[in-house]
Amino acid sequence: MSERQKSILDAAVRVIARTGVRGLRVEQLAAEAGISTALIYYHFGDRAGLLRRTLEHINDRAADYTDPSAAADTRAQLDLLLLHEMQDTEAVRTNSTAWGELRASAVFNDELREPLAESTRVWVAEIADAIRRIHPEAPAADAAERLTALVEGLSERWLSGSITLDRARDLLRGAIALELPDHG
Amino acid sequence: MSERQKSILDAAVRVIARTGVRGLRVEQLAAEAGISTALIYYHFGDRAGLLRRTLEHINDRAADYTDPSAAADTRAQLDLLLLHEMQDTEAVRTNSTAWGELRASAVFNDELREPLAESTRVWVAEIADAIRRIHPEAPAADAAERLTALVEGLSERWLSGSITLDRARDLLRGAIALELPDHG
Repeated sequence: MSERQKSILDAAVRVIARTGVRGLRVEQLAAEAGISTALIYYHFGDRAGLLRRTLEHINDRAADYTDPSAAADTRAQLDLLLLHEMQDTEAVRTNSTAWGELRASAVFNDELREPLAESTRVWVAEIADAIRRIHPEAPAADAAERLTALVEGLSERWLSGSITLDRARDLLRGAIALELPDHG
Repeated sequence: MSERQKSILDAAVRVIARTGVRGLRVEQLAAEAGISTALIYYHFGDRAGLLRRTLEHINDRAADYTDPSAAADTRAQLDLLLLHEMQDTEAVRTNSTAWGELRASAVFNDELREPLAESTRVWVAEIADAIRRIHPEAPAADAAERLTALVEGLSERWLSGSITLDRARDLLRGAIALELPDHG
């Protein structure tokens, strides 16, 4: 992806996190990114193409939170991969807010459903791979799907003010220990 | 609560599930409920009062899904309480859609945050009580908060088309077995 495309998608994530998907108009995004609307259409086709690439970009941004070499072992890598989705930084808060908003909007908006399902599959598969590296016999697919759904549920509670960030992280740590007890 | 109030709150849940919180205008709700806007203000004060009572009403509706006497034992009661949040019926789909929409909207809308946190606490406490009846030594508060957050995460995936209902229910059953292994 070009730097220009990346900066447009970063702007899309910010706009969605600030005003919601329904507030994302190509004119507004062009203003946020400091470019013309024509350039947005040139790079992403239509609004559906833009939303699809924005979802992929949110996943890519989340993957960048984690430097796997910083983890002491594979179990620590899994903790990092999941716990890094809930951090008190502007980047994570913006990313999680945009993801949650896209998830919620897809309930009402058919054009989002397939791209969101695809981005969800990619994320679940990444976590399942991390689990298999730790524990080849674990039911990795189930554990990955549950843990990522729990991250979504806890993140929405955190971002909507129903739970503190520390409490959400503690509950997620507990879930990882339950899913992979041999590595607690 | 009077039948009149109940019918207004039922209408509010339907409107939120169909068009979102941002689409909930008192005029629209009055039309849906077949009454005057004045009567809505009379019963619920302002829009904040209406939203607060709607959240409580969603919890009450969900509690009505389950007839505890239908369960063979307390473990089956807990399964019912949680699994009944994900069913292929119009009532459950409408209720879950409205709850998810209120959760997502509270990220952007401060007036929803405290009523939503309170409704969440009530729900978590109900599930924690059910867990304590089954297993007095279980870490009921943690398990209840995790399982209800997982219900929210899985419900949003189901309603947004990222997972089938059967798969979501299987994953939730697995989580209950992990949280309460002695009763699996």
